[in-house]
Formats: sequence, structure tokens, C-alpha cells
Amino acid sequence: MRFCPTVSRSLRTGNAKTLGSRHFSSSRLLMDKFRVERDTFGELQVPSDRYWGAQTQRSLQNFDIGGPTERLPPPLIKAFGVLKKAASIVNVEYGMDPKIGEAIQKAADDVIAGKLVDHFPLVIFQTGSGTQSNMNANEVMSNRAIELLGGELGSKNPVHPNDHVNKSQSSNDTFPTVMHIAVVTEMSNSLLPALTELRDVLQEKSKAFEHIIKIGRTHLQDATPLTLGQEFSGYVQQLTNGIARVNDVLSRVRCLAQGGTAVGTGLNTKKGFDVKIAAEVSKLTGLDFVTAPNKFEALATHDALVEAHGALNVLACSFMKIANDIRYLGSGPRCGLGELALPENEPGSSIMPGKVNPTQCEALTMVAAQVMGNQTTVSIAGASGQFELNVFKPVIAKSVLQSIRLLSDGARSFTKNCVVGIQANEKRINTLLNESLMLATILNSHLGYDNVAKCAKKAHKEGTTLKEATVALGFLTPEEFDEKVRPELMLYPDN
Amino acid sequence: MRFCPTVSRSLRTGNAKTLGSRHFSSSRLLMDKFRVERDTFGELQVPSDRYWGAQTQRSLQNFDIGGPTERLPPPLIKAFGVLKKAASIVNVEYGMDPKIGEAIQKAADDVIAGKLVDHFPLVIFQTGSGTQSNMNANEVMSNRAIELLGGELGSKNPVHPNDHVNKSQSSNDTFPTVMHIAVVTEMSNSLLPALTELRDVLQEKSKAFEHIIKIGRTHLQDATPLTLGQEFSGYVQQLTNGIARVNDVLSRVRCLAQGGTAVGTGLNTKKGFDVKIAAEVSKLTGLDFVTAPNKFEALATHDALVEAHGALNVLACSFMKIANDIRYLGSGPRCGLGELALPENEPGSSIMPGKVNPTQCEALTMVAAQVMGNQTTVSIAGASGQFELNVFKPVIAKSVLQSIRLLSDGARSFTKNCVVGIQANEKRINTLLNESLMLATILNSHLGYDNVAKCAKKAHKEGTTLKEATVALGFLTPEEFDEKVRPELMLYPDN
Amino acid sequence: MRFCPTVSRSLRTGNAKTLGSRHFSSSRLLMDKFRVERDTFGELQVPSDRYWGAQTQRSLQNFDIGGPTERLPPPLIKAFGVLKKAASIVNVEYGMDPKIGEAIQKAADDVIAGKLVDHFPLVIFQTGSGTQSNMNANEVMSNRAIELLGGELGSKNPVHPNDHVNKSQSSNDTFPTVMHIAVVTEMSNSLLPALTELRDVLQEKSKAFEHIIKIGRTHLQDATPLTLGQEFSGYVQQLTNGIARVNDVLSRVRCLAQGGTAVGTGLNTKKGFDVKIAAEVSKLTGLDFVTAPNKFEALATHDALVEAHGALNVLACSFMKIANDIRYLGSGPRCGLGELALPENEPGSSIMPGKVNPTQCEALTMVAAQVMGNQTTVSIAGASGQFELNVFKPVIAKSVLQSIRLLSDGARSFTKNCVVGIQANEKRINTLLNESLMLATILNSHLGYDNVAKCAKKAHKEGTTLKEATVALGFLTPEEFDEKVRPELMLYPDN
Amino acid sequence: MRFCPTVSRSLRTGNAKTLGSRHFSSSRLLMDKFRVERDTFGELQVPSDRYWGAQTQRSLQNFDIGGPTERLPPPLIKAFGVLKKAASIVNVEYGMDPKIGEAIQKAADDVIAGKLVDHFPLVIFQTGSGTQSNMNANEVMSNRAIELLGGELGSKNPVHPNDHVNKSQSSNDTFPTVMHIAVVTEMSNSLLPALTELRDVLQEKSKAFEHIIKIGRTHLQDATPLTLGQEFSGYVQQLTNGIARVNDVLSRVRCLAQGGTAVGTGLNTKKGFDVKIAAEVSKLTGLDFVTAPNKFEALATHDALVEAHGALNVLACSFMKIANDIRYLGSGPRCGLGELALPENEPGSSIMPGKVNPTQCEALTMVAAQVMGNQTTVSIAGASGQFELNVFKPVIAKSVLQSIRLLSDGARSFTKNCVVGIQANEKRINTLLNESLMLATILNSHLGYDNVAKCAKKAHKEGTTLKEATVALGFLTPEEFDEKVRPELMLYPDN
Repeated sequence: MRFCPTVSRSLRTGNAKTLGSRHFSSSRLLMDKFRVERDTFGELQVPSDRYWGAQTQRSLQNFDIGGPTERLPPPLIKAFGVLKKAASIVNVEYGMDPKIGEAIQKAADDVIAGKLVDHFPLVIFQTGSGTQSNMNANEVMSNRAIELLGGELGSKNPVHPNDHVNKSQSSNDTFPTVMHIAVVTEMSNSLLPALTELRDVLQEKSKAFEHIIKIGRTHLQDATPLTLGQEFSGYVQQLTNGIARVNDVLSRVRCLAQGGTAVGTGLNTKKGFDVKIAAEVSKLTGLDFVTAPNKFEALATHDALVEAHGALNVLACSFMKIANDIRYLGSGPRCGLGELALPENEPGSSIMPGKVNPTQCEALTMVAAQVMGNQTTVSIAGASGQFELNVFKPVIAKSVLQSIRLLSDGARSFTKNCVVGIQANEKRINTLLNESLMLATILNSHLGYDNVAKCAKKAHKEGTTLKEATVALGFLTPEEFDEKVRPELMLYPDN
Repeated sequence: MRFCPTVSRSLRTGNAKTLGSRHFSSSRLLMDKFRVERDTFGELQVPSDRYWGAQTQRSLQNFDIGGPTERLPPPLIKAFGVLKKAASIVNVEYGMDPKIGEAIQKAADDVIAGKLVDHFPLVIFQTGSGTQSNMNANEVMSNRAIELLGGELGSKNPVHPNDHVNKSQSSNDTFPTVMHIAVVTEMSNSLLPALTELRDVLQEKSKAFEHIIKIGRTHLQDATPLTLGQEFSGYVQQLTNGIARVNDVLSRVRCLAQGGTAVGTGLNTKKGFDVKIAAEVSKLTGLDFVTAPNKFEALATHDALVEAHGALNVLACSFMKIANDIRYLGSGPRCGLGELALPENEPGSSIMPGKVNPTQCEALTMVAAQVMGNQTTVSIAGASGQFELNVFKPVIAKSVLQSIRLLSDGARSFTKNCVVGIQANEKRINTLLNESLMLATILNSHLGYDNVAKCAKKAHKEGTTLKEATVALGFLTPEEFDEKVRPELMLYPDN
Repeated sequence: MRFCPTVSRSLRTGNAKTLGSRHFSSSRLLMDKFRVERDTFGELQVPSDRYWGAQTQRSLQNFDIGGPTERLPPPLIKAFGVLKKAASIVNVEYGMDPKIGEAIQKAADDVIAGKLVDHFPLVIFQTGSGTQSNMNANEVMSNRAIELLGGELGSKNPVHPNDHVNKSQSSNDTFPTVMHIAVVTEMSNSLLPALTELRDVLQEKSKAFEHIIKIGRTHLQDATPLTLGQEFSGYVQQLTNGIARVNDVLSRVRCLAQGGTAVGTGLNTKKGFDVKIAAEVSKLTGLDFVTAPNKFEALATHDALVEAHGALNVLACSFMKIANDIRYLGSGPRCGLGELALPENEPGSSIMPGKVNPTQCEALTMVAAQVMGNQTTVSIAGASGQFELNVFKPVIAKSVLQSIRLLSDGARSFTKNCVVGIQANEKRINTLLNESLMLATILNSHLGYDNVAKCAKKAHKEGTTLKEATVALGFLTPEEFDEKVRPELMLYPDN
Repeated sequence: MRFCPTVSRSLRTGNAKTLGSRHFSSSRLLMDKFRVERDTFGELQVPSDRYWGAQTQRSLQNFDIGGPTERLPPPLIKAFGVLKKAASIVNVEYGMDPKIGEAIQKAADDVIAGKLVDHFPLVIFQTGSGTQSNMNANEVMSNRAIELLGGELGSKNPVHPNDHVNKSQSSNDTFPTVMHIAVVTEMSNSLLPALTELRDVLQEKSKAFEHIIKIGRTHLQDATPLTLGQEFSGYVQQLTNGIARVNDVLSRVRCLAQGGTAVGTGLNTKKGFDVKIAAEVSKLTGLDFVTAPNKFEALATHDALVEAHGALNVLACSFMKIANDIRYLGSGPRCGLGELALPENEPGSSIMPGKVNPTQCEALTMVAAQVMGNQTTVSIAGASGQFELNVFKPVIAKSVLQSIRLLSDGARSFTKNCVVGIQANEKRINTLLNESLMLATILNSHLGYDNVAKCAKKAHKEGTTLKEATVALGFLTPEEFDEKVRPELMLYPDN
């Protein structure tokens, strides 16, 4: 029952005859390969090893846009499993046949476990409410439940995709609900741990580097010194704030639209259904969810996800800064800044030892560029709701989940393959520090601005060290210079 | 002492001779019009009725980019007043001559009061640290203080721009500090009140419209009904969330970089200066500020402002949705949806009564487009810090403050000139509702899906009402129809 | 030799032991499943049914970012086939063993034919020069060529990935070259035909609708009339311009970086290699290519692709406008504008006949949002070149190719599943036109502004037609009204 | 008659009483200060020294959004002068009283000369068609013409704003027309010269630096050498392409909407009016304009300006790359790359000689960030047309014109204050080149890869030069090394 990309386009035709002529040698085989499913538009042939039904098949044919890479992302599919399981539990409470409920729950467990990903072939460029994917979920779970109960696939009996799996729901409230479930889940279980891990490793580096005094750089120009540990502490703070930002936005993504049904009024569902669903989803995921305070807002807008992506966008900006710093500080080996040695993960040059391309930084900054573009997509899509519904749901879902995935994977890869292994080139750092003229600032209180400027100018002009110039000008002896010009005194405010 | 845009370009030349030949008839006049100011690069002529000094003048000449509309926004200038006042108070605590301190504080009060805006002529496309604007502030306040103390402008005596006004500070920590002061102030004093006002008026409308049942629209297609009050309640929720979002991001914008000086170490300032400054700024503004937990992050990144703009970007998306809905619902007068009557604020057409162009919606959606573009600018600029400094500070400051201003003004204008005066065309709303076929859904439980579909299909095909079709098919009497098909029963979940 | 997504993560480990313990029951099987490949870093186990080598395998392990959907898009892989074939032809001219050349060309043909897509497992979030994908291409084609010549996979003999397949090339010039080959190919063979088809079908509709006079709408408000054909002619012009734009940008994308090698100087390649390669690529693809006039620009920037995406971005804006118009014009069936009937491709509502959700419009506007976001990504990435190299190449390539694919597929789907089937609801259009008050403008020259305004005001106030009001006020008889108020006279400028 | 920003807010109230009480001491003064203007909504008081009328005043009051910096940019106002002059010339041809025509033309000349900028107080956040600014133009030019003819301001006699100045026009076609006139004018007269100047100066630098061999850098890591002239030739090519791009997009911006009137049909104008206007505008500006091939497209979309901004966006990306390279190459003075010496335009540090902050690069990269954000704004606004009109016109106009202005000014400032004065630190460049290990690549053909790698590894490990290592290993004598390792042989492909 494995599903490979290479057959996807033929599946789209949904036309067994055509398919047959291309792929199969006998009508016997053909009969085995397809079964008939039907919706209000009529009959359609569906691959017999797939659980989906007519509405999914119809969408496959009508939306041949983008190919397999544009399919709904797996976390969204798993969230459908969670939601449909929760709904069936609540529906049993409200009176649905427990036997049917149980079968749906088992089918949902398969979806949650990721076993049925290949049965969700639809792309995000479909109906903007995600209706077809909700139907895909209903069809797959009803057919799987039917199978578990010994029924016939496609018969809609004893488990009906609409009457049972979708009971008390509408696509218009289920799709935003699974969007939120998926985003909270991925943020909580994937992004936050990855960020925390990166923060902690940066923190370790900051600690390990706290004794290394280096030249500061502002406007890319030499400035007063700081420790390498202090420099890294800025990155740590960025991550700490980034984690707090994600936690902040989660407070509004936790709100679920479920219970609003078609337009937000909750018609055709039961009073209390919304609250119970949120509670059940919380139980199933181990994460906090609540029902949205206003279902009209929850269906017609995606402000909460635009906001959530804003936090992802800040992370992208943070990553861009950190990765850029690190690759510049690691530039060289001879003609760059050379203050850091980055781990060498792959051949940088077959002949040039020391040419360690900062490939992890490159990957991470590309992630950042992608996420910053997704911000534009999500904003445009989020701004485009109309009346009772926003119909840019799938592209919002995909963009937010892609950003989460890339930031999580990117952070993890960057941590493991780069940050952990960063070493300071202390010798180089020290050389640069001592060659710098910026240490002169500490002499102001001793010699006065004008004299210090003279020393610095002389050193600059003649290419000597500040010490040499100062001694040559007779302001200080070498011993006095060494006693006074101590970078370790320049790292903090005065007492 | 008024400063008009039309003379700005000539001021840029800083060349009195050229200026003279164009504007003045005698060298006598010339001598009156300019005074000499100097910096480490030499002397420069400065308009004698301006408080700025050599470094400002030099920037005017070197950065002739964009013209007067690109100058630093007034809230930033006022924030310089606040900061320099706070610094002088703290510096007096640390031992600065109280007479000098007091003069600086009076000069700063003039800046805070907006009296000296015309003395801040620099554009944002200058040095990326905002150094030149910090020097502009130092020069203006020292000259004004000198004037108050009876000294000579340009003499730097008894109040020196660097040694006194800028004491214990660096451009690198003052500029991010004034950015944060300005943003917190404008968000608190301008944006939040404007949003609250809009939310409250929308809430009133929602209440006033709660009895009006209307057709719902999903995918732009007729859907099950809701009340106009419910529809507006979605907008209310958007604003309520938007207010919460702004409050959330304020928590990190409240953190001030002051005390980090040039590279974040705090060199050349005093221990505790950072905390005292934040306390003093809080006192002066009546708003909460704290010192940033990590000064390296506060100088080298602007993650907090990228985050803050994320909240503004969500507001832009919300405004786009709300304004679009309202203009579509108000479209007509004959050939649109026509459910709302928008106030008529200006002639829409000289001949066409009822052609009320939704101009406030148009202005607000243009505001939204501008803010959504600013999001891209702020993100790119925010991602571009290098080592110890981000040198995209002015463009970030300007973009965030522009977005705040436009959203505030836009919300206020929209509230006053549009939302307050919106009226429901109840007759039209009711007609559409009754013409709709969507009410059929309520008959499902009475007649069964198939029969209901028959009624709806007949009505659709023949262009009659659902009632007519249902009665014609003999499913219900007119009385039964009216009794059962009651939209007011379709507005909530079942009990 | 099929490769399924589900095994990809385990492949990443490249650790046969681990893999074995999870997936295989015996070491015997293990030995069959993997072979050893080596690079300068050492040995690695590679799945024995894959042609890739050590560097690809290493990248798989080091860049576990994003999963299968983030792999290099197929057009880029095919372009590698084209380039390596062209290079081998030219290299034979310059003296490479023809037997080796021929084998490489056969292997390249397999890549061009898409047979080896599953042997390119790398994601775009890798080294920013695309080096690892270039090595992937070298490894796959050398191993396939070795196989064709009866050698042993992994032996690098007689066809070496670097010395033969990559001869006279560097990753730094090959990757931008394949980017341009892929973009020109996809624009020429996929996008332009799709746009032309959509334009032609819109043109047919414009022609078919040229007799239908309808109300115009500006500011969403009723305005003077035009024909539905005229309205559609605007869309036709948008497409015509869009096609011209794509052709315009192609002029710079046709320029190939090949021949610049590592930094643009062409070191390690032959004089004339660049020109010959471009000629050969032109011959192989049947499309025009030339060598880039400046190789430093071609390696270090991607201005040409930023420009190219600008043309795609305009198409996105055009599509957004067209699809929005069409879905609003098709809104209803009872409570919207209802001027157009869109084809019904799937069940819109199980009970509501006539509820045809404009799903194709929804998919197309989501495509537009995606492309507009990609514009931000491509711009940021394109702006981020450093010195001799831009290291955001893969994300640029992917974004541009994704936009082309989505716009092509989207246009095709929209044409076939929507535009072709659009029908005008002439009755509804006519009703609206006649109910409108905007026709009054034509009476200005007959009755004068003031009198016309009186008629319109009366009609607006009383809800009657303009005709009724005009007759009631005694300005015209019904016959006179009908004679004068002829919308067909309002469709063109006066003679 | 000077107009200062500080009074603008009070003008907005349009309420003479309020104004009076705040600003004036007597009602006598008040009567002098205001006159009455009227529109179909009634009477309004207008400052007596302003030419604008009631509709402008009303807009001032209703759109208090953003303040003076958000006013229509001057090039747009001048374009109104051009258009109204052209229209009056053509209208006289079609029979308008030549005396009136002549007066309008003189008034228009004042607008073109920039004398009346202060009479255009409206902000861009107004009606989205720009109607109010078109009326502003009509009012100003009619009142000025009335004045010239000795009539009374506000009397609309003998020159009527609508009947004469706006004759045969609609806001819906005039506003897009002035947008295009302004953009073509600014691109032609400001941007292209600025770009050409920058290109030429870069070209001179490239020529001057053609003998300086330096280390190449890819991935920020040392790579094979090139000349500094070659490096700069890449920037030259970027500018050359940028110029070509602007010229390309001009071909579609040259098309004018004029003649489409309200909805594109040309109702209420004359056949041929459109062609004559374009010809007249061409004559007046000395630039090529043609009438748009399809007026429906020209009113309802702004694809041409979205496209035009795409070319500006590429320039922004080019500028970002060039300015970043230059500031990194100029980083130092001791602890950076230090290959370039940038001109010192202002004090970088009061004590640190040689600390030349790359402020021009900083300003230019901030310009780039702004333009890249404007791309998002323009795209969103451009995508948002509805039916017969796009009502995001003012924000599109402002964004495109701002980008042109900033890129022009930025390029000019960067050329004059930075590029012209760039000098190569040849000694530093040479030192880095010789310290580098990348020159080793040239020894491959002599010693073989393995031996060369040994030399490079030894040098890397021991921190010696390549020469020292090679000699120490006995592969070459010092003389042989010098003879073979000649970077000047590494700058071109082999013969």
C-alpha cells in the first residue's frame, strides 16, 4: 500500500481506462485496481488501495497545481486525526453509536500515527476553505473504519463520511481548527525544543568564551573591546526572547474555531460541543486548547496565524544576524576575520586546508529568507477574508507550518553541525585586539584627548602599534603603557 | 525662527557664499544669517537662527537623500528630549554641575513640547546608527541651554554637546533608546486609544444590529444566516485581539538600551546608570520602561521592533478585512449588495444620488498596504545587524513610527467618518434573506435531504422563492412553511 | 530502483548499522543494500541502488532540513543533465576521451528524461552555492556512465565525477547556469503556453460577450455602463502584457555564467569554453542562450532572477485581480452580484443548488499570494551576495521555479476548469443595468444636470426606476425616455 | 503666501471660528483670512491665500491621516500641471474658448514650475481613485486662471474647475495618467542620469584598479585571485543591466489611461482625444508617451507600475550587494579586511583616526530596505483592483515615486560622497594575497594535488606562508616558487 510520487499524475486523471492503457495489461488487473466511489455529482473510479473517496478524487482531477511537493503538510493531516477522534468521542457523548465512534477513533489513531499520509494526496491549491481536504479526511477515516468493521470500502456503510466522521462539523470550522492544532503542536513539540537547545548551546559557548577579550566592531569598524562571551550573550538573549515570543503568540493560536460550523453561528452543532471538543483535543495532544471566544472571527480571519508568523519572522531575523556574524567571524583562513573556527563538515576545497565553508550558516540564512517571504504570503492571505470566511486557509496553513519546520530543522542542524563545534582562535583574536588602536580610548583620562589622538594618529600613519607610538612620543614608558592599557578594564561600566 | 521646506535644499549646501548670492543682497546680511560652528573636521557655516551645529550641518550636506518628507519623525525627536532630560537628571546625581543640568533640562523641555522640531533637519538616510541625529540633539540642546544661560551659540560653553548633553552616553545606545521611547509612547498614547475607540464603536454597532438577521456568505456564495450584530462581533473580536497584541509586544519594547554605550559593555558610563535612566524615563513619560536585560542584543539587533511591527502588521490585515467587508456590504446603490448605508462625506458623483464612494474604506486599505510593505522593510533592516551594531536604525524607527501613525490616524478617521454613521438597510437585508435558498437547510429534519433539495432546485431553476417552490411541490402549506422556516432559529447551536 | 519518501530519513543517517537494526534482519541483506563511497573526508555507506556518492550522502546527513518537499525541483535536475551533456560535448572538442564523453552524454540523457530524479535527494537548504547538488549531479552521472561502461559503482573509474563530469567547471558557475537553463526552459515551455492559452480563451469570452451591456462599477459603486466584452478585454490586455513581460526578462536570463569557474575569472577552464557551452545548451534545448557578458556579476548576483521574478509577481497581481472580479461577478446565486455563472466542478453544498463555490478562483488567488511572498524571498536572497559569490542560490532557484510552476499550473487549471465554462447571466445583467440610476448621465445634455439630478434623487428615494421617476416628473414621456436612454450609446467616446 | 507645516492641522478643521479663536485676535482678521467655497455638499471656508476649493478643503477635514509627510509627492503635482495644460490645448482644438484655454495653460505652467506645491495639501490616504487630488488640481488651476483673468476666487467664473479644467476627463483616467507621466519623467530625468553617473564612476574605478591583484572570496572564504578591477566590473555590469531594466519597463509606463474617463469606455470624451493628449504630453515633456491600447486595463489595474517597481526592486538588490561589499572591503582600520579606503566625510570617532564609518553605504542600504518594502506595498495595492477601477492609486503613486527619488538621490550621494573617493590599500591587498594559501592551486599541474595539499596543510598548521612550507618540504626552491606561483596567471581562462 505504498504510494510513490511517480504515479501521482496518472491518479489525477481518475480515468481508469486511460490509466489502464498506460499501466496495465489486462482489464482483469484493472478491475482490481479501482473501485467506484460516488458523491452528489456522480461516480468516480478511485485506486482500490486508497481509502479516499469521490470528493478527493474529484479534487485531484480539478486541481492539478504544483505536484506532490504542494500537498498538505503531514502535521495538518495528523491534526485531522486528532480532531476527528475528539469529535467522535464527543459525538458519542451526544448519542452517536459507540461502535461507530470506536471504529472512527481507531481509524483516527492510524492517521495520528502517520500511517495514512499517502491517502491524503490533495494539494493546497484547492478550494480555499480546505473543504476538499476535510472531505478527504472524512472519506479516509470512514473507509478505514468501515474496513475495521468488516464493511465494503465506498459503501459509506456503516460509517458515513458526512453523517458520522463529520458529524456536528463543517469544513469551515474543521479546517481552521486543524490549522491551529497543527501549529500549536509543531511549535510546542518541535520548534520550542529546537530553540531551547540552540539557546542552551549558545549559552555554553558564551560561558566558555567569557575570558576571551576581543575587538568590538560597530559600522564594521574597529571599536572598543568586549569578550567573546559577551558577544555570544547577545545571541543567547535573542533566542531567549524568541522563545518567549513563540509562547506569547501561542495564547491566541490555542483558540479553536470548532463549533462555529458553516458561518460561525454553530448551526447544526450542539451547545457545548465547542468547549468539549477543545477539552478533548487538549487531552489527546497533552497541550492546552480552548474554544475561540468568537467563532465569526475564527472562521473569517486568520489574524492569530498572521500574528504567530510574526514571531517566526522575528526568529528568521535573529537567525540571519547570528549566522551572518558567525560566518564573518569565521571567515578566512588567512584573508578574513578568522576569530572563530567553525567545524568542518564536508570538503570545502579539495586542495585548500582551512577553507571551511560556513555551509550551516548558509542553509540557515536561506531558511531565514524563505520564512521572511512566507511572512508576506501569510499577511496577504490573512488580509483577504471575505464576509463569513477566509478562503486562503490552505496556503496560510502550509506557509506557517513550513516556516515552523524549517526554523526547527534549521536550528537543530545549525546547533548540531555548527554551534556545538565552534572554537575560538584565541591567538588571532588577541593579535587583532592588540593591533587595534581602539584601546587608546582608555588613555583619555590619563593623557587627555588631544595627546591620545596624537598617539593614535601616529600609529595609524606609520602602521605601528599604539604602544610603540605612545612610547615614541614620550607620553608613557612601555611599562606604564602595559599597566594602563588593560582591555579587561574596558568591559564594564565604571563603578 | 520658522523653517520652511522651500529653503531646505539651499541650507544643505552649507555654503554661505552660494546661498548669499541666491538669497541675499549684501554681505552684511550674510553675516547676520550665518554663524560658524566647528567639529573635528573643521568649520562650517550654520544658519544663525538654527540651534544645530557643525555635525548636523555636515550631515545635511552629505546626505541629500529624499528631501523633507524623509526627516526623522517628530515622536523620535521628542523622545530625544525625554532621554536627554532624563540623562541630565541622572548625570547631576552622579555629579554634573546642577546649573548645567537644569539648563539642559529646560532645553529638553522645549524639544519635548515640540517647539524645536524645525531644528532637526536630518533625514533618515544618514549614518545607520543615527549618530548624526544624536549629535543634532546634543547640538540643539546644548546651544539652547547656552542661550538660556546667556552664552554664545556655537561656543560649546558653558554647555558642551558631548561632554554634557551626551554625557555617559553613546549614539549607539541613545538612538535605540529613543526608538523604544518613541514607539512605546506612540503605541500607548495614540494607537491604543484609537483602537479602543474603534472597537467600542464597532461594539455599539454590533449591539444595535443584533436583531437584524441577514444572509451569511462563504466563498462569496449565499450561506446560512446570521445576525448583522454577529457579523460585526467578529470585527470587535479582531480589535480586541489587536489591542492585546500591541500590549503583548510592548513588554519587550519597554526595555531600553541606554547604558550599553558604544558596544554594549557600558564602557564610559557608570554602574547603575542604565537602571536609573529607565526609571527617570518612566517618570517623565508616565509609562513603564526598564533597562534591557542584555545590552549587546539591544544595540546589535532590533528584534523587539520587528516583533512590534508584527503586531502592527496584524492590525493592517484586520483593517483590510473589515474595510473590505464594509465596502462590499455597502456597495450599490442598486447593483451591489446594498446591505449597509455608509455615511456620505463628500460628493461621490455630481449627478448620482446614492453613489456614496466608500472613501474611508479606501484610505484605510491603503494604510494597510503601506503597513504590510513596512513589515518587509522592517524585517530586512532588522535582520541586517552586524557584530556589535545594527546600522539600519533610522529606517526601522521611521517605518515603525509611520505604521503606528497611519494605523492610529486611519482608525480614528475610519471610526469618526465611517463606522459611527453606518446604518443597516434593513429592508434590503430582509429581501435578500427571504430570496435566498439557504434557509432550506432548516427543513432537512422535517422533509429529509432529498425533498428539500427538490424544492431548492425547483426554486433555483424557476427563479421563484423557496416558499413558492415548497408549496407548489405540496410538501408544506404556506402557513407550515412560515412556521418552520424561521431564520431566527438558525443563529445558534442546538440546545 | 524506486525511492519512496518514507525511507528518506533513515537514508540520511548514512549509518548502515543503525539502518540495519531498524530495517533489516541480517547482515547479508545489509551488504547488499549499501556500497562504500569515499571523498576527501573518508568513507560513507550509500544505498546500493542509488547512483549518488559520498558528497551527496554527506549532505543528506548534514542538512536534515525540511524533508522531501524541499528537494531541488525537477527542472533544475534536468538542467544539470543538459549542462553536463553540453559540457562533455565541448570537453571532447577540447580533447577529452570521446568514449568517456559519450557515456556521460548517455547518463545525462537519462537525467534529462527525468529517469533519475530519485537519485537527487538533496534539499535546497544546503550549501548556498549549490555545490553539493553539483556534486550530486557529478556523482550520479559518473556512476551511471561507469555502469554503462561496465565499471564498478563508486570506483570513479573510468569516469570520474570531478575530472570528467565536472571538467572545466566549478560549482560556482554550474549552479547559476542550471538555474538559468531551468528558468528559461520552464518559462518558455510551460508558462508562456499556459498564459497564451488563458489569454486566448479570455479573448474568446470577450468576443462572445461583446453584445452584453452591463453596469460598470467603480469604488464598488454603480457607474456608467460598458459591455461584458469590454470588461473581459481588460483581462486579455493584462495577459498580453504579462506575456510580453516574461519575454522581456528572458533576455537577461538567457545569459549563462558557465565559464566563470570559481570566482568569475575562468581559471581552470579554456578560452572560448563559455561561448561554446552556451551554443551547445541552445542546441540541446532548442532555446536561445548566450554567455554572460560579465562572469563576476553572474556568480555574485542574481539580479537577472530577481528581475525575472518581478515579471512573475506582476502575473500574480493580474491573476488576483481577474480571479477576484470573476468570483464577485459570479457571487450568489441569490444574494450576490450574479452576473456570471461559473462552471460547477464539484459539490458546493449537498442541499443548495446554485451554490457554486468559485474554487478555481480560490486556488488561483492562493497561487498569487504564494508568488507574491516568493518575491520577498527572492529579493532578500538576491540582495545578499557577498564578494565573488551569492550563496543563496538554491532558495532563489526553488522560489523562481515554484512560482513558474504554480502560475503555469494555476493558469491552466483556471482556464480549463473555470474560464472556458463561464456563462453570462444575461437576464440578471440586464435587470441590474435597468434598475441602475447611472444611465441618467446620458440625459444631461437633454435635460441639464439639475433636472437629471432631480429624477435620480426621486428614483433613489422612492425605490423606483429612473424611467418611472423621469416620467412622473414630466420631463419625458416613456417613449422619449426609451429613445434617449440607450446604454448602447454610452460605450464609446463621442464622435 | 508661504505655507508652513505647523499650521496644517488647524487648516484641516476648515472651521474658521475655531481657527480664529486659536490664532487670530479679531473677526476682522478672520474675514481676511478665509473665503467661502462651495460644492454640491454646501459651503466651506478656505484660507484666503490658497487657491484650492471646497472639495480639497473637505478632503483635508475628512482624511486627517499621516500629516504633511504623507502629501502627494511634487512630481505628481507637476504631472497634473502637464496633463491639465495638454488637456486644455486639446480642448481648445475641440472648441473650448481659447481665452479660457490660455488662462488654464498659464496656471498649469505655474504648477509645472513648482510654484503652487503648497496649494496641494492633500495626503495620499484619501479616496483611492485620487479624485480629491484631481479636484484639487482642477480647483487650483481654475482659481489661478480666474485670478489671471481678473475674476473672483471661488466664483468658478469664467473658469470652472469641472467644466473647463477637467473637461473631457474623469478622475478615473486623469489620476492614472499623471501617475504615469510622473513616473516616466522621474525615471528619465532623475533616475537614469543618476544610475549612469554611478555606473561611469564605477567603470573608472574598475579601470583604475585593473592592475591590482587581490584574493577572491567565496562563501566569505579565501578563494582564487582576481583583480580589484574585475571585482568592480561586476558592479558596473549590475548598473548597466539596471539601466536597461528601467528602459525596458518604461515601454509600458509610457501608455496613458487618458481618454478612458469613468470606466474605460471613453464616455463624455471625444474620439481621438486620447491620442491627441498623449501627443501633447510628449511635446510638453520632451518624452515619449502613447495612449494605452486598452483603457479598461489602464484604469482597473496598475500592472505597469507593479512591473516598473520590479525594476526598482532589482536596483535595490544591486545597491545592497555593492554597498555591502564596499563596506566590508573597507572595514578596519586594523581588524577588518581593509582592502579599500573609503573617503572620510564626517568625524567617525573623536579619538580614533582611521575609523571611517561607511555612512554612505549605510544610507544606501537603508534606501534598499525601504525600496524592497515598497515592492510589497505596490504589489498588494496593484493586486487589489476591483471591476472597473483600482482604488489604491495614491499609495501606488507615492511608493513608486518614493523609490525612484530615494534610488536617484541615494545613487547620487553614494557616487559623489563615496565611490569617487575610494582608494585601494594596495599594500594590504598584496599582503593578504601573499599570505593566502589559495595560490597553491596553480601548483597542481606542477606538483600534483597530493603534494600541493601537503604544502598547504603544513602552512596552515604552522601559520607560515605557502612558499615557506613548499620550500621546507623540498618541493621547490624559493626561486622556483616565485617563478611558478604568479597570481597574474590566475586571472583568465587558459588559452
